[in-house]
Amino acid sequence: MTDPHPAQSRVGESNISGSTIDELCVNTIRCLAMDAVQKANSGHPGAPMGAAAMAYILWDRLLKHNPNDAGWLNRDRFVLSAGHASMLLYSLLYLTGYDLPFEELKRFRQWESMTPGHVERGPAPGVEVTTGPLGQGFGNAVGMAIAERWLADHYNRPGHEIIDHYTYVLASDGDLMEGVSSEAASLAGHLKLGKLIVLYDDNDISIEGSTDITFTEDVAMRFQAYGWHVVGPIDGLDMDAVDAAIQTAQKERNRPCLIICKTIIGYGSPNKANTGAAHGEPLGEEEVRLAKEKLGWPYPEPFTVPQEVLKHMRQAVHRGHEWQEEWKARLDEYRRAYPDEASRLEQDVWGELPPGWDEGLSDLFKNETKPIATRDASGKVMNAIAPRVHSLMGGAGDLSPSTKTILNGQGDFQSGSYCGHNMHFGVREHSMGAIANGMALHGGIIPYTATFLIFYDYMRPPVRLAALMGIRVIYIFTHDSIGLGEDGPTHQPIEHLAGLRAVPNLVTIRPADATETAEAWQVALERKQGPTALILTRQKLPVLDRSVLLPASGLRRGGYILWQAAEKPDIILIATGSEVHIALEAGKLLQKKGIFARVVSLPSWELFDSQPTEYRNEVLPPDIRMRVSVEAASLMGWERYIGLDGVAIGLKRFGASAPGEVVMEKLGFTAQRVANEASRLLQRRKE
Amino acid sequence: MTDPHPAQSRVGESNISGSTIDELCVNTIRCLAMDAVQKANSGHPGAPMGAAAMAYILWDRLLKHNPNDAGWLNRDRFVLSAGHASMLLYSLLYLTGYDLPFEELKRFRQWESMTPGHVERGPAPGVEVTTGPLGQGFGNAVGMAIAERWLADHYNRPGHEIIDHYTYVLASDGDLMEGVSSEAASLAGHLKLGKLIVLYDDNDISIEGSTDITFTEDVAMRFQAYGWHVVGPIDGLDMDAVDAAIQTAQKERNRPCLIICKTIIGYGSPNKANTGAAHGEPLGEEEVRLAKEKLGWPYPEPFTVPQEVLKHMRQAVHRGHEWQEEWKARLDEYRRAYPDEASRLEQDVWGELPPGWDEGLSDLFKNETKPIATRDASGKVMNAIAPRVHSLMGGAGDLSPSTKTILNGQGDFQSGSYCGHNMHFGVREHSMGAIANGMALHGGIIPYTATFLIFYDYMRPPVRLAALMGIRVIYIFTHDSIGLGEDGPTHQPIEHLAGLRAVPNLVTIRPADATETAEAWQVALERKQGPTALILTRQKLPVLDRSVLLPASGLRRGGYILWQAAEKPDIILIATGSEVHIALEAGKLLQKKGIFARVVSLPSWELFDSQPTEYRNEVLPPDIRMRVSVEAASLMGWERYIGLDGVAIGLKRFGASAPGEVVMEKLGFTAQRVANEASRLLQRRKE
Repeated sequence: MTDPHPAQSRVGESNISGSTIDELCVNTIRCLAMDAVQKANSGHPGAPMGAAAMAYILWDRLLKHNPNDAGWLNRDRFVLSAGHASMLLYSLLYLTGYDLPFEELKRFRQWESMTPGHVERGPAPGVEVTTGPLGQGFGNAVGMAIAERWLADHYNRPGHEIIDHYTYVLASDGDLMEGVSSEAASLAGHLKLGKLIVLYDDNDISIEGSTDITFTEDVAMRFQAYGWHVVGPIDGLDMDAVDAAIQTAQKERNRPCLIICKTIIGYGSPNKANTGAAHGEPLGEEEVRLAKEKLGWPYPEPFTVPQEVLKHMRQAVHRGHEWQEEWKARLDEYRRAYPDEASRLEQDVWGELPPGWDEGLSDLFKNETKPIATRDASGKVMNAIAPRVHSLMGGAGDLSPSTKTILNGQGDFQSGSYCGHNMHFGVREHSMGAIANGMALHGGIIPYTATFLIFYDYMRPPVRLAALMGIRVIYIFTHDSIGLGEDGPTHQPIEHLAGLRAVPNLVTIRPADATETAEAWQVALERKQGPTALILTRQKLPVLDRSVLLPASGLRRGGYILWQAAEKPDIILIATGSEVHIALEAGKLLQKKGIFARVVSLPSWELFDSQPTEYRNEVLPPDIRMRVSVEAASLMGWERYIGLDGVAIGLKRFGASAPGEVVMEKLGFTAQRVANEASRLLQRRKE
Repeated sequence: MTDPHPAQSRVGESNISGSTIDELCVNTIRCLAMDAVQKANSGHPGAPMGAAAMAYILWDRLLKHNPNDAGWLNRDRFVLSAGHASMLLYSLLYLTGYDLPFEELKRFRQWESMTPGHVERGPAPGVEVTTGPLGQGFGNAVGMAIAERWLADHYNRPGHEIIDHYTYVLASDGDLMEGVSSEAASLAGHLKLGKLIVLYDDNDISIEGSTDITFTEDVAMRFQAYGWHVVGPIDGLDMDAVDAAIQTAQKERNRPCLIICKTIIGYGSPNKANTGAAHGEPLGEEEVRLAKEKLGWPYPEPFTVPQEVLKHMRQAVHRGHEWQEEWKARLDEYRRAYPDEASRLEQDVWGELPPGWDEGLSDLFKNETKPIATRDASGKVMNAIAPRVHSLMGGAGDLSPSTKTILNGQGDFQSGSYCGHNMHFGVREHSMGAIANGMALHGGIIPYTATFLIFYDYMRPPVRLAALMGIRVIYIFTHDSIGLGEDGPTHQPIEHLAGLRAVPNLVTIRPADATETAEAWQVALERKQGPTALILTRQKLPVLDRSVLLPASGLRRGGYILWQAAEKPDIILIATGSEVHIALEAGKLLQKKGIFARVVSLPSWELFDSQPTEYRNEVLPPDIRMRVSVEAASLMGWERYIGLDGVAIGLKRFGASAPGEVVMEKLGFTAQRVANEASRLLQRRKE
């Protein structure tokens, strides 16, 4: 190791000669970052320059991956939690031989390039996860490490370590300031996830300047308190030190490891290194020139990759091929010895639902006559599914007795019994969401999370990222309205349904009863290209009598005619969830007064809006403008269905603490009120 | 000290005799909690029973407060972060003589009672803050402790310690699992908030059972890592031990203090103590009877308060009166010695805006001809206001160079210079929101926070609570759309405007240019009864030429006619923020084609919707149904203004990484597209 920069004089005057191949590789990464950001005239050069050495060592010496098969199951996972350091990862992918054309590095941050500003899963192979919002990648990695342990515990057999890989994270100061990483770290320590290794790029700089102004805690001690193995601080520019630290971390199998690497943001830049100015904007042509000079970089042309660098780093292709072939051979042996396990593993990993998995689900509540809360119905559906869909695994943010999400007899996921299906996330909703994303991304698990709908607010960022990445995560949100009662306005969601519905590629379903709940679960499991939120009641609801009403399978189209007093109704009542019963009762009250209503159950706006126009016009005929919507939530968005001529019954205020039925009545959610509004509306039209 | 329960046998068989007045008081609190929850048939008995002793000691011996004046400025603040333990606080308030009638304890969790399920600021005097969502109260308390130090540093003079009080928190396991408290604790340690004292009710139980299943970190070590002074673990049932611990904490003025109090959830309940069953549901009549027996409680009637208890605890009224009188005398002396400071202190504390504070603000950009981003305009407005409105204080979540929220020359808030106006929150958005709430609740500060709009997702819970409490906090959210460009979809808000607009009592304003930005700031500061969110661009926007357009003061009504080609337009184009310019350009394109458009700037839906019908009908005449909305965000909610006959131009997808103008164009936000849609709409009507 010849890096001449001792940590104590990090922005020193020493001559960086680039005399070894390792140093040349590292400087290539640094220069590509400077060049790409400069060309885009936008981006973050500082982090790639500071973390290049540590990331390079990991990728060149230790990371088990195969550039020719980014999807190899047993690869080590690498999560760039500091997603703004995207050029670091893009360079590594290109240099190690992933299918990322060199031209794409020059198209950094351009329309439809494979190299967007923050790393995104999708455009380029080898990017495990979309990151950028700080702390998320850290949480995702905990989820990946959980998935690895879960699959290993289920499928490995003595002498057959089919699932056995590390999960590495590169995290920044900002990642570790965010609460989500604190939560995830506490849980990872508790679970003794020994194969999780976090490289902390500790450069003491954030956007407002030195971390001295706000972040002076003892990070090492904090992580020790979580039960982590802490290595360092080491000099993160000293490649051999990084190598040794990672190897030390690998050997500790009972605790996750944090390696504290002291680095210098914008390393090499004579005027901007170690300052916030290196973080989020181009260095400038002249400073790039000076930095290259200081780094001893001899190539005047931007985007230069020395041949010897490419040759050295592309050895990853060969190594990766060998690793994967060796693993394939072992998998073959495993398949011979344990054919059933092997085929179930494949099913888990491909995320397939086994034949017959949904048999009888739609009839689960056929003979149910007593009222049942949709949260309870959901619990029954989950427990009917769980024995058939092995990969279903998840838990609640310390609310499982209330969310009814325990999978009976399926064990707890804990150190020592990693095969359990029930996660205990603790009162940590934010990391719960991030961890679930990591579980889904790893493969092998269809994760679900559960909490009260109000606490969706604590986990919005990971829900959004699941939608953005298009991964299958199932969110169970119970206690879905003011109908939850006494817990009061701090616990009564108002704006949350509107919030969920506004997220692209998220399907939100608020079933009206047990029968719709069973359908909703089927939709959620079948939907592989994005997350689904199930919105469930705390309070009991009648089971809709499908012998007189239209079938619950209508839920699959998002909205359907549930009942009507006449083929050509005077008015349409539209409702979701618990309010469907109110609308139905109102419809019958109106019928007695000679007003013919249609009642539409609209459990999922997204599913309904994606139906063909003819179907939508059949349910909501354009010429029937007399429409009343009923939902115990924010009015936001209801005009999409009722227009300017209808009436939306909803909430413009927060809820209140009182028994649920009292709150519902006081705030106007009664059949009589709905019937009155409907009558008035028709009356007004006549006038 | 006579409590016979050593920590090692906490659910022992010992006879609790209630032999001292202290024990009798504590048991009164426990029994009231059991009785009220039982009567409501809903609630959380366990935490009040376990924490009764520690809370009682604080309130009886150490907390400086005045039951006859819950608003006394220099009172110690008490934050029940574990808001579900509401009966604990209600009992303390009643017993120490606050204006909370005894009957209200019997109306626990009933409609319009003063005793809602989770504590709420408002109904009962003495409740400092609405809590329930875990971790929030902890963050609020950090904000209060900041406000105390800030006011003290500004106004105290040698020999005149006018502002000098503690902030106490009662926090649960759940509070400390949430990431928001981790963030807030890290910042509090950094800031050396020595007068913040957290009593940690460490009962090792959460809803899913023992914390062993998920929360096994070393909390003491974690807080030491944050720079806190940690006392304990002590026996939280041992009143003298609690007393001594708090006194120790009070003496340490350079570090916040965490006192770890080992307690037993549901203490006294023979069958439910120390189990999750004591947490969130009534114990049951029989168990209440058994618990009272075990506690040595001799009164068979529920809701019994022994006279000696009332007599003893009501001494708080006298003590509080004396404290406040003594303080008033000191304040009078101060006022004589420092009349200017005293009057400015009053102005700060009352949250008043000084006469002339807004002079010239509306003309700030009168002569501005160059395009200017609304974030930059906002920075200029803030810096014009700051020298006049002393109480304006806040900062960003490590983004101030980007959010343009530095108050120039107003100093940083740091230990050693607590009078600075610029907070450095670090990359900790969630606690930033909670801390701002605490600053506003304390009084003396009009807090603002700043981050990118996308990171509203990280701080939704405190924003909601600010709206629920009706407090003045100003949120600056910049980088407000896909127009931010290269940072890509992880940083481009889509659903966030809809989300903000759906929160009751939150006013959201998305100004179209610098002139509207100046108006928006005035609205935000004048709005005392709730929070305001200002939504600002990263990209530059032309300054609307008010010599030819209608004045920016129209912003105060939420929406206004900006320009029109004719008094009776064919079509209305409605837009907000950066898209107003597109709509305006489209209006002119249409004019050339002989189509007369009206352009409505609609920066704030909430302000517009609260206008009289006549005004709204003037801006959006009901008979003009041809309407096109343009907003580079989720379509959610736009049908409120365009109905079923209009066209909403917005986004159903996530954004993309590319230069801002490219993204805007590719995703359809151009004047030509708007004009085309408008023409097509009119064409369709004719067909």
